[in-house]
Amino acid sequence: MLTLVGLGLGGPESLTQAGIAAIREATAVFAEGYTSPLLPETLVWVEQKAGRVRLLSRAEVEQPETLLAAARDGDAVLLVSGDPLSATTHVSLRIQCRETGIECCVVHNASVLTAVAGELGLQHYRFGPVATLVTPKGDYHPLSPVKRVLQNIEAGFHSLVLLDIRADDPAAEPRLMTAIEGAALLLEGGVPAGVRTCAAARVGRGDQQLWCGALDELEQAGLGEPPHSIVIPGELHFVEEEALAALQE
Amino acid sequence: MLTLVGLGLGGPESLTQAGIAAIREATAVFAEGYTSPLLPETLVWVEQKAGRVRLLSRAEVEQPETLLAAARDGDAVLLVSGDPLSATTHVSLRIQCRETGIECCVVHNASVLTAVAGELGLQHYRFGPVATLVTPKGDYHPLSPVKRVLQNIEAGFHSLVLLDIRADDPAAEPRLMTAIEGAALLLEGGVPAGVRTCAAARVGRGDQQLWCGALDELEQAGLGEPPHSIVIPGELHFVEEEALAALQE
Repeated sequence: MLTLVGLGLGGPESLTQAGIAAIREATAVFAEGYTSPLLPETLVWVEQKAGRVRLLSRAEVEQPETLLAAARDGDAVLLVSGDPLSATTHVSLRIQCRETGIECCVVHNASVLTAVAGELGLQHYRFGPVATLVTPKGDYHPLSPVKRVLQNIEAGFHSLVLLDIRADDPAAEPRLMTAIEGAALLLEGGVPAGVRTCAAARVGRGDQQLWCGALDELEQAGLGEPPHSIVIPGELHFVEEEALAALQE
Repeated sequence: MLTLVGLGLGGPESLTQAGIAAIREATAVFAEGYTSPLLPETLVWVEQKAGRVRLLSRAEVEQPETLLAAARDGDAVLLVSGDPLSATTHVSLRIQCRETGIECCVVHNASVLTAVAGELGLQHYRFGPVATLVTPKGDYHPLSPVKRVLQNIEAGFHSLVLLDIRADDPAAEPRLMTAIEGAALLLEGGVPAGVRTCAAARVGRGDQQLWCGALDELEQAGLGEPPHSIVIPGELHFVEEEALAALQE
């Protein structure tokens, strides 16, 4: 059996009882940190409970021979930040389990996809499609996600803007795009400098920070370490107005 | 202090360690089941750990004198299914805490908003705005949420369709709209009968059920007890196609 255990947003305190039970009963525990960054304190906690946690590279999740072999012979757990199945890779993994007759379970947990809006006081049903900004490589600055943001602004919808993670190599520190870098890409892609913008850092952790201001002021937000997310609000309900006003106090 | 503790999607096994710690340390534990239904086994589990859980009515969360008094004098916990702050009421509650100088903490957890898409194998960034269908009252059949679904179909986006809960009275059983009732409203509002439709029941619980077929076949899906959700997929990535094909096997 393979159990995808969602780690939620914080450290070990964010684990659910179902997640902890799966970890305790596991014959092998794996983790991947390239779809979403892992917190080192969670890995330390899990190692204390269950022994070694093996960090998988992107390639080892996409061609999951090792993972599927462990799941065929015993109870394998794959630790994933946030809520599992939010990345295509994990959906593919589940399809591969089904095709090879391996049972696959999911332990759900909190996700930035839901928590960021909630923390900012913005309503889910007012969000258009999510955009993920991709880190530029040399002269290549992919701006199509910014088009989605512009379409949402036009339609009056809020936009959740997720920021790229570069973590192909599990031996190296992942490289997380900051909100300042994200804001630069949004400006480059044509989002007006004065647009009201929210930013959230380390959502769901003890040192979470929220900010609201004009897009071109975001570099003064002082959000601290990533992970960061950006939200460009659209038309606002009066309770949403109140929530954002409280952030700007 | 007031701590909003998210209960996630399942029973007590879905509680996080942070949620359990908050419950253990609480001087008063409250729960509300009108924004999202509560599982009785979770309430029983919490009562065993922390003593009495007081069920609040809609009015008692919207005019939260009792709750704020308990939070002023001690450590109050409010249990909320899924991830707290997904309902406007909880955002208002947090604003009222800030205004009256009461600290307000949130323990995030899994939400249908993220989990349903994941379980169906659909990608979050392909979803347009969420629609919530409202239970008709007599001759009044509110169809504006269906317009949102039609706009999403037109734009090629997936639609998450949430189904209304009637739970104004905490003494009475909540009345949850079923997927069959939801499908009837979608058809009445002009969504074509043959549109490919997904339905999910009891997502994140042991007896979860998923289904995919034509909208007018949904009444044959046999999903069992609510809570149910509906998803109308838009344009599909090939991994999404594979995931839905597996559901139809």
